[in-house]
Order: sequence, then C-alpha cells, then structure tokens
Amino acid sequence: MYVMKNNKRKDIIMLAFACDYMEGAHEKILQRLSETNYEKAPGYGNDIYCESAKEKIRRACECPEADIYFLAGGTQTNAVVIDTMLRKYQGVVAARTGHVNVHEAGAIEYTGHKVLTVPSHEGKLMAGELEEFLRTFWNDGSHEHMVFPGMVYLSHPTEYGTLYSKEELLEIARICREFQIPLYLDGARLGYGLMSRKTDVTLPDLARICDVFYIGGTKVGALCGEAVVFTKNNTPEYFLTMVKQHGAMLAKGRLLGIQFDALFTDGLYYELGAHAIEMAERLREGLVKKGYPFFLDSPTNQQFIVLPDAEIARLQKDVYLDLWDKVDADHTVVRFATSWATAKEDVDALLGLL
Amino acid sequence: MYVMKNNKRKDIIMLAFACDYMEGAHEKILQRLSETNYEKAPGYGNDIYCESAKEKIRRACECPEADIYFLAGGTQTNAVVIDTMLRKYQGVVAARTGHVNVHEAGAIEYTGHKVLTVPSHEGKLMAGELEEFLRTFWNDGSHEHMVFPGMVYLSHPTEYGTLYSKEELLEIARICREFQIPLYLDGARLGYGLMSRKTDVTLPDLARICDVFYIGGTKVGALCGEAVVFTKNNTPEYFLTMVKQHGAMLAKGRLLGIQFDALFTDGLYYELGAHAIEMAERLREGLVKKGYPFFLDSPTNQQFIVLPDAEIARLQKDVYLDLWDKVDADHTVVRFATSWATAKEDVDALLGLL
Amino acid sequence: MYVMKNNKRKDIIMLAFACDYMEGAHEKILQRLSETNYEKAPGYGNDIYCESAKEKIRRACECPEADIYFLAGGTQTNAVVIDTMLRKYQGVVAARTGHVNVHEAGAIEYTGHKVLTVPSHEGKLMAGELEEFLRTFWNDGSHEHMVFPGMVYLSHPTEYGTLYSKEELLEIARICREFQIPLYLDGARLGYGLMSRKTDVTLPDLARICDVFYIGGTKVGALCGEAVVFTKNNTPEYFLTMVKQHGAMLAKGRLLGIQFDALFTDGLYYELGAHAIEMAERLREGLVKKGYPFFLDSPTNQQFIVLPDAEIARLQKDVYLDLWDKVDADHTVVRFATSWATAKEDVDALLGLL
Amino acid sequence: MYVMKNNKRKDIIMLAFACDYMEGAHEKILQRLSETNYEKAPGYGNDIYCESAKEKIRRACECPEADIYFLAGGTQTNAVVIDTMLRKYQGVVAARTGHVNVHEAGAIEYTGHKVLTVPSHEGKLMAGELEEFLRTFWNDGSHEHMVFPGMVYLSHPTEYGTLYSKEELLEIARICREFQIPLYLDGARLGYGLMSRKTDVTLPDLARICDVFYIGGTKVGALCGEAVVFTKNNTPEYFLTMVKQHGAMLAKGRLLGIQFDALFTDGLYYELGAHAIEMAERLREGLVKKGYPFFLDSPTNQQFIVLPDAEIARLQKDVYLDLWDKVDADHTVVRFATSWATAKEDVDALLGLL
Repeated sequence: MYVMKNNKRKDIIMLAFACDYMEGAHEKILQRLSETNYEKAPGYGNDIYCESAKEKIRRACECPEADIYFLAGGTQTNAVVIDTMLRKYQGVVAARTGHVNVHEAGAIEYTGHKVLTVPSHEGKLMAGELEEFLRTFWNDGSHEHMVFPGMVYLSHPTEYGTLYSKEELLEIARICREFQIPLYLDGARLGYGLMSRKTDVTLPDLARICDVFYIGGTKVGALCGEAVVFTKNNTPEYFLTMVKQHGAMLAKGRLLGIQFDALFTDGLYYELGAHAIEMAERLREGLVKKGYPFFLDSPTNQQFIVLPDAEIARLQKDVYLDLWDKVDADHTVVRFATSWATAKEDVDALLGLL
Repeated sequence: MYVMKNNKRKDIIMLAFACDYMEGAHEKILQRLSETNYEKAPGYGNDIYCESAKEKIRRACECPEADIYFLAGGTQTNAVVIDTMLRKYQGVVAARTGHVNVHEAGAIEYTGHKVLTVPSHEGKLMAGELEEFLRTFWNDGSHEHMVFPGMVYLSHPTEYGTLYSKEELLEIARICREFQIPLYLDGARLGYGLMSRKTDVTLPDLARICDVFYIGGTKVGALCGEAVVFTKNNTPEYFLTMVKQHGAMLAKGRLLGIQFDALFTDGLYYELGAHAIEMAERLREGLVKKGYPFFLDSPTNQQFIVLPDAEIARLQKDVYLDLWDKVDADHTVVRFATSWATAKEDVDALLGLL
Repeated sequence: MYVMKNNKRKDIIMLAFACDYMEGAHEKILQRLSETNYEKAPGYGNDIYCESAKEKIRRACECPEADIYFLAGGTQTNAVVIDTMLRKYQGVVAARTGHVNVHEAGAIEYTGHKVLTVPSHEGKLMAGELEEFLRTFWNDGSHEHMVFPGMVYLSHPTEYGTLYSKEELLEIARICREFQIPLYLDGARLGYGLMSRKTDVTLPDLARICDVFYIGGTKVGALCGEAVVFTKNNTPEYFLTMVKQHGAMLAKGRLLGIQFDALFTDGLYYELGAHAIEMAERLREGLVKKGYPFFLDSPTNQQFIVLPDAEIARLQKDVYLDLWDKVDADHTVVRFATSWATAKEDVDALLGLL
Repeated sequence: MYVMKNNKRKDIIMLAFACDYMEGAHEKILQRLSETNYEKAPGYGNDIYCESAKEKIRRACECPEADIYFLAGGTQTNAVVIDTMLRKYQGVVAARTGHVNVHEAGAIEYTGHKVLTVPSHEGKLMAGELEEFLRTFWNDGSHEHMVFPGMVYLSHPTEYGTLYSKEELLEIARICREFQIPLYLDGARLGYGLMSRKTDVTLPDLARICDVFYIGGTKVGALCGEAVVFTKNNTPEYFLTMVKQHGAMLAKGRLLGIQFDALFTDGLYYELGAHAIEMAERLREGLVKKGYPFFLDSPTNQQFIVLPDAEIARLQKDVYLDLWDKVDADHTVVRFATSWATAKEDVDALLGLL
C-alpha cells in the first residue's frame, strides 16, 4: 500500500518499488519500543539497550574488541566517520559514483575534506586503479600541495546493487595497509549484501577486513539508525564529543539501541535481508522471463532494467517508480528496489503489469 | 522505574529525576507509528504525515504561512538553523549560559560561526544589554574586523528553567528588527514553557514575535524530533539541501511527521506539558514545605535546589540525580526535572526520601 | 643565476626554467616601494597607493564600475573569491585539471565547498560539456540531494599554458548566464595570456565577459599579490570582513597597492608579459628546430616537451627543471617556464645544452 | 609624514600615531630585497634566505631544535597555528580581550574551533583563573558535551600594551603542562615587548617556556611576515600542506625569508624594538608631565590616555589618531603607538600640540 499525497487529500494506493525505505520498522522493533517504553534510561546512548545491542553486534561480527556507536542516518554516519578519522590535510578516496561523492549534498566537503575519486565500475572501485592512484600521489613531486588520500571509502552493496568479492576486499585492504590508511565500508544496505546468493562475504569477514564499517538499519528494517563498528581499537579519541559537534547525538539513544538490539536478536537482521533478496530474485526471474534488458547485473535487492519511456509512463499510473538515468532519447533505466517489507503479492502484481 | 547497567548485569530500579528524556514516547505516538507502519511513503519528509503535522502546527501557531521542517534533535536543529540563516561573516548572539554556547560541543563554531555572548541572568539575556551590545558593535570603528551579530538566540524555557515574559520577548524582537537581524528561539522544552502557570506567552505569540523557533519534541513526549517553524516567509533558499549537507535529513521522514502529527492532535502536546508542570509544582511545594533553599525560582519543569553534599550522597543510593554546580565546599545545586512521563507516586517517593 | 641550498652551504649557480616565480620583483616595483617607504599610510588597503592602483586597473579594464581588491597569493584568492561568492549549498565547476581541483591542498573544500569537475582538454573545459553538466544537474530528480553548481572556474592561461579564445569565453559566459551562476577566471599568469601572439582576448574583454577574475601579480613581476576584479557591481557584502576571516588581509595593504600601481603604470604589466612570451617563442623555435616532441601546443610562457629520462638526468646537472608527468617508462614531460625576468642568454644556453 | 586620501586627491601631511604599521619596511630590508632580487630561488620557502633566517632565529632563541615557518600576517598565523595544533573537538583558551576573540572577524571559528574565554586584566589572563577554568572543565560531569580546552593563547605584548612577567609565563606554562595542552604566544609586537624597560622576559625564555610562538615582523619593521617558532619538536604533521590549505603559502617565500634574515642580522630586530620603546618613553614622560591621565600603565610602544572629546576633535585636525573606548560621555581613550619608524621630532610635535 503506497500512500501518496495529492491535491484533493484523497490517499491513493499504489504499488511501490521506488526504494527500500518506504515502510516503518519491522514489528519486532515496534514491539520492543513499546515494551521498554516506560523504563527510565540515561541519555546519549548510555543505556542498557545500546549496551546489549553492541554486545550482540560484537558477537555477530566475531570481533569482541569492536567499538560500536549508533547514529541516525547514512549521510550523517559517513560525514562523522570520515571527518573524525581523517587528518585535516587528508581526503577520502571513493569511486566516482560513491554516495559520498554524489548524493550527500557535499556533506563531506562541508566538513572540510575533499572526496578524491577513482573510476567506478558498476559502482565498484578496482583495486588496481586504487593502488595506481595512491602510488601516483606519493610519487608526485608536489604532493605536499595536494590533498592526501587518507582513507578509502567503499559502499557494499554499491549504489548500483553490486558487491565486492572477499578477494577484492582483501586486495583493497592490503593496499590500504600498504599506504597506511584505513578502509571504511558504507553498509547502508549491508543486510541485502550479506544475504545475496552471490556473495562470499560475511559479517565477520568485514570486521576482519575493514578498519571501520557501518551496518545499515534505516534501509533494513529500522525506523532509523546505523551501527558504526570500529574493528581495530581505532575509535577516534573523544569520538562522542565530535558526534555531538556534528549534531548527530540523539538524547534518547535508546531509540537506536533498542532497534539494533531487536535486529541482532535471533538473526532478525539476516532474516530481513534474506526476504528482500528472495523478492528481488523472484522479480528478477520474472523480468528475465519477460525479456527485459538489464542495465547491469545486480545480486542484491536493487534491480536495474531499461524500459521504453512509453512503458514507464503507462506503469506510473499504478506503480511508484524510481527513474535512474536516461539511456537514450526513448529509454530510461528504472530501479526496482525490494526490501524487508516487500510482499510477494506486490512482486507478482508488478510482473503482471509489465 | 529507572533501569541502570551495572557490572553484574543486574538491572537496578531507582527513582530518577535527572532529566526529561529518560522514557520513550507517549503511547499515542507509539500507537500511530504502529498503525501506519506498513503504509508505503516517500522518503525525506515528503509523506502525508509530515504534511498533516505541518498543517496542524500551522493552525496551532495561527500562522498559515509558516514553513515547517522536522529535524531529529536539539543541537542539530540549532546548528542547521543558525548556520543556514547566518551570512558567512556573522555570528549568533546568545546569553553566556545559552545551550549553543556551552553544551553543544562547539557545534555552532564547527559550522564556522562564532557565538557572541551577552550576560546571562538566570539563563536569560536582557533586552537592554543586548541593545547595548549591538549598538557598541555598529559604533565600533573597526567593526569590519569583527564578527557581525547576525541573529539573536534565546532558549525558552532557558537552561535554568526560566521564562521570558511576552513583554520581554516583544522588546527583544523590536531590537532585532531595529538591527535587522532575525530572532531565533530554541524551544527544546517549549511545551513546559507554554504550560507554565507563570507564563503569558502562547504558541501564536511566538509565531508572531520570532522569525524562527523550534518546538521541542524529544523532551516533550517524542522519541526524537524537533519542529522548526519559519514564520515570516524566510526559509533559507534550498534549506533541505543544507539539512542534507549537515547530515540531518532522515530517510524515513515519516518517523518525525507521525510523531508531531500525534503531538498536535487533540492538544496532546499541551497535555504533556501540563502534566510535567503539575508534577513540578507538586515537587516544588513539597520542597518549599521541607524548607529546602532554591537556587533560583523556576516556573517550569526543572527545579534547582541547593543540597548538602552529604545528603546528595545518601540520596544517590535511591535516586538518579543530576548534579549542577558546586555552590561551596559542602553544597551543590541539584536539578530535579519532571516530564510528561513523571508519576505522581515518584514525586511523592522522592519527597519522602528528602 | 639560480641559487640553491646544498649540504655544504656552497651556493650553486645553474640555469633555471622550473617556474615563473623564481626572482623577486621588477625593479620599478622595488623602486616605488623604496620611494614611498617612509610615508605613513593607513592600514588594510585604505591607502592612496591601493586607490591609485585600483583606478589604473579600472581604466585598463575599461570598466569604471569595477570593484577591486588586492590579495597576497593565488590559492588564497581562489579560496576567498569562491567561498564568498558561493551559497553554502553550492560548489564550483572546474576542469578536472584546474588548479583549485588539484594543487591547492583542498583549500576550496576547506571552506566547505565541493569542486565539481568536467573533463579537461589540455587544461580547458569545453562549453558543450559544461552545458551538459549543468543541464543534467537541473534535470536530475534528486538534485536537491546534490551539490549545486554555483560558479564556473576557468584558469587562463590554464595550468597547461593553453588559452581560451574570445568565442569560447563568450559561449561559456552565455551558459553561465543561462544557469544564473557567475563566471570566475583565475588569471595567475594573465599577463602571459594577454600578450600571447595567439590570443584574441584583451583585458577589457575579460572585464566584459567575466563576473569576477583576478590579475596575477606574483607570477608576473610582483613580490606577491593578485588583483581581484568584480566587474558587475557584484562584490559580496562585507567582502573585506570575510577576507580578514580567511586570514587574507595584509595590515600593510600598501605593499600590494604600490606593486599593482607600478605594474599598471606605463603598461609595465603588458611589457613584462610580452618579454616572457618573446623568450618562450625563442625557446619554442629552438626546440622545434632540434626536433623535440611537444606534449601539447602552448601559446604562452610555459612550454611542455617530452624528454627521454636519460637526457633529463644529464640536463639536471646544469638546469633546475620541473618534471611534469611520466609519459612512458623512459620518457617524461618537462615544463620550461619563462618569465618577465628570463634572460635571452639563459634561453640560448639552455638550447645549447639540449 | 602621513599621506591621506581626500576627495580632492590632494595629499595631506599630518602627524600620525594611530598604529605601528603605517610605514613600509626598515631600509636594510629593502636593500636586501634589492640585492637578492635577480637571484633565482625555488618557491614556497625552500630558498637559502628562509634557511638562513631560520638559522639566525634558532640562534637568537637559543633553541637549535626549533622548527620555524614564515607566514604573511598575524590573523593568518593565529588561524593556521591554532587550527593545525588543535584536535577537532578542542578550542583555544584566551583572555576575553585577546585578538583572536575580538578583532579577527571570527577567523578562528571559521576553522571550526571555539575561542574559550577567561577574564582579561588589562589584556592579560591570570594563571589562577586559567587553572580554575581548566579544572572546572575537567570536573564537569558533562564535559564530553563541551568544547575541550586544547591550547592556551597569550598575546605578549597584549592588545593593551601590557606584558607578562617571566614568573607569570612560567606559572601559565606549568598549568598548560599539567593539563597537557600547548602554550601559544602571539608576538605580533614581540620586539616592543622584548625591549621594554620593564620586562624580564627574553627571546630564549619564550623558546623555553612556550610550545609555539610567533615573532612579529609586520609591526616591527617588515613589509609583512611573522615567524612561527615550534620549540618542542612539535610541528604538526604536514604543516606546510595545511598552510597551503589555508591559502597562507606564498609562492615567493623568499619575500619573508629575506626580511627575517635582515631583521635577525646584527640585532636589527632588537634595535627597532628599542627605538620604538625610546620614543614611547619620551612620549609617556611628556604626557605625565602635562598631567594627562593614563587609561592603564603600558610598558611598551602603545600608550593609552584619556582625553576630553573636545581636545580629540581639536587634535584630529593635525594628528591621525586611534580612538579606543569611550570612558564616559565626554572622554575617550586614545591610543598613541610608536614604532621602529617614529621620529623624535614627531613625538615632540605631538607633545607640543597636546
């Protein structure tokens, strides 16, 4: 059920595959919020729910020394993590299509740091090109007049739904170590990456490979919230003060703690990821069967197909769609996103309309 | 019930008057979150709940032209509003004790703007001293080498629980108009100010008097959320882009819209404010009766008394307290905060312990 | 005469073509500094020399309404002009190779603004690609989540010594007007551009075409100093306060005023430009005669040729060189820069060594 | 000779005691600029004159391990040093009247850091109040929500011409060490402080006591330039990259190196300081004799006296004055500054007019 505002204030109900943050939260989260509602807890994340959630995430990561913090959203998390880990003369290296480079309204530059870019290959950066970029910088005779690459940023799944293999991540991490800069992974849709049928990367792998990463909650069943995991005893000093300085500290930190506690109880986070993947595969198979051309091959919850503009116009009467790029004068890439909340009936209805 | 972590993981239940953000949310909010949970809504605040909440707030403010935005927390709201309304060469004028000057980890300066201070009188700035400050600046021959006062910041209630009278606000607003700078009011605890028995200031008054203010949700019954109200068709251009740039835009904007929609349905916001005031008055009367000396006279939900350190030590076995300033070697100011969720039984139990 | 430090503190004298800022200042500048030295003048640019220099530049620009400011260096000027002209949600569009994008240590990002890039063609951006970039931005459904292009930055001559034609500049200016953003031209080496034998662009042309540009002094005969020219009554409000805020205001503003007054007296600025061009042409002809391959075709004072690394090693015994990029395993691009101070004998000596 | 602009472009010659940066540079500086003018030197401070000047300053400081950098002006130096030495969550502690807090147009806040203030006593901060401020911060239970004091800033001479005694500096340094934060001294007018007849503080003392300080050139005989001295092997990593990022790196670094080389040859810096002090003492004695009331007792080149506004009006016909603060309705504090360039005849002429 998609509820839209229109001029007549009559709510219109439609199919909706525009993104993976259209519903509220998984009901177990709502239930826990309700059950704990009248308990009094100290503010700013110093409550027993945050503590419990952190412990469960440490176990899920097989990383007992992990230092974990909860923030409210993805852009905020990227800005806080990148700004607090970089020295003032450093920037962050990302694929040109990286979220931090394109769709965060300059939030990284707002903190004073440049986003340095390497080419994007369906959303991914290539280890070889990264290494070449870093080596070229250090070999440049005037590199002291340039922004120092101080961190590598990956999104996984990427903005195009693609995934790094474990081997690719290991190679990128090796390069980061060689150049002594941290590897940071943006896991806004991590649940959908971890449960992809095509991945060989697990949560403990990420904890071993990355210096810091975040486990996305907003797009994977929470009302809001991302869990930042520092894996190498490398939390920036007085991190919470800088979180506050960024305006990113919630007074009622329990709101985030309770949600992640629920997500990491009895494997809920994985279950939600698996459901979205199942729905995406169902959609994908239907699309393949119908012969639609795919823009690229995504193993996660976002599927990108090329549609004639006329068909798009027709579909939009019944479906809330996310138009991606124009391919040519008459065709556009459309993104269909499934989520933890996607109903099988909706997938079938969509396939019926196509 | 105050739930605390301790080393043995046994939860300890105590009385708690440390602050007004220790519980979750009013149950009507939780109920609405639950009822609307599976409706699909567009992101970033473009949903029907945000729209509905805005309309209700406009009506409550008697300000049909008000432009309203929802943000997650107080420091974030202050940083976003102040940064987006100031020119680059301007700073914000606040009482020395203003939240933006003391307890936001430099969030305003982080945006590049200075907090200019005038004396604090139990948390309030005085119109006369403000005017003198502004006049002195403009008369200073070298004022082009100084930070220009570009906005006035008030908190209401202040950090000390005190309130401006309508006359005081009108006089401050007159000065702001004379010097052509906006008046911004931080209403983190606004509900408790509006329902004070000693106030003559209403929400429509604030909408008329202030150029921008925010209605605090976090401390008045919401899980999180503050409603920024631009009252004079004066929203900064591309405000939402700058909200995103600050990392302050929630993907699921509905979380804020639904909460404020509930708070402004059937007067819930006022009801919650009134309850906290009733509890504060009950506490206050008990304290007066017992002869405790008050640090200052607060007409809102925060009561400040001076206690001997020995009594504090004794109390802390049973009560979670917020210690304010040391008064002398043996005495400390203690803040008792009531809230929308404070139980009469807890007030009585506290009075019993004192 | 190139004076170098070495471990034994014996000064070594060499040929030097590494850059165009290796000498002090033209002697007429030194003479004027000396003549005016004991006159007492008010600080911060409020002196008669600044006033006189501004008037001469206005006349040279045929732009009586021009508003002119003197700053100390190029990166500083770029940061101040770009930061003060952009709104907080905007970035500056530059060719990927633009100085602001590569060699200013992130000075623009440090002010909170992103450098948005379009492809570089021998240092220049192409009007068509710029227009496409701007159009794509405004057509993007999620452009409010992106950095707004708020200004176009050109360098002229570019970092590769190339020049825009008047037609190219007019077309770029037309696009800027269409998208309502200012056109800014970095003229760090403007004197060498204006006196190129291949240019059809004059100083009055620039004043008509650009919204703001700067006339480089540091690389064209001054000790330091750049003259920023706002041509359209468009100086940002309280610009000098923001100059001070950037740490860019010299107490003894006369140092800059006197220098630009001298440079714009009796056509000195053009004379210095012409000399460097004459020397560059002499060098260029010699290089062509000797059959050296040029990396690109530069009509200004910087000449880029491809040399075998072995020859470079040999040359470096006698010549202070600026190595540019590696072309392949055995070849490197070398930049030879002439300047207002280059001696004909040195050019001939260099050609003799090659 | 004071040269003023007026509407008729006729230069008016007046006495001038408004500040200590009204002339160009000492003639030995001009002479050295001239002598070295055609030597080719590498840019950005990598020249033999910078090297030589640094070595001379190290010797004058009796601090062979000192790391020295040259910047162009005072506000720039303060912003660069403070920003590069502070962590992101820290601010700098200064007396309320400190230059960084009042007259730098918010340059420190522009870098994201708060100026934390302690009371000013004729421009000086008191060790006891500093210690109390720091102790209170660390004892505050919510200090992680506050700006951390990360450095102490002193000006010496202060903005009121006053000086710290060696004992006072040692005590402040002791407190800094106790709280593990660096002590930074702004020596914009250091030459006039070092040569005061009332001081017991030498340059080697400052090198021992301070973690970083700067030796002012602009106000003590140079065209521009300040020499930053890091005394404890504590230069921030990649300091020059951050200097560039601040737009504070001069291409022709020699301009600064040559000037400081001249200032620290044969004691010129001290000689210039001594001259200004001699002139200030002559002025002071004359003022005392005439019975003028002093606003405060300054042992350096700035003398502050209280004058009736009528007398000021009369004086301004012949003298360029710097009006400080209003004392009452009819009286104003006037600052008379002498400098390295003040002529004895001018002092006598001024005294004759008073």
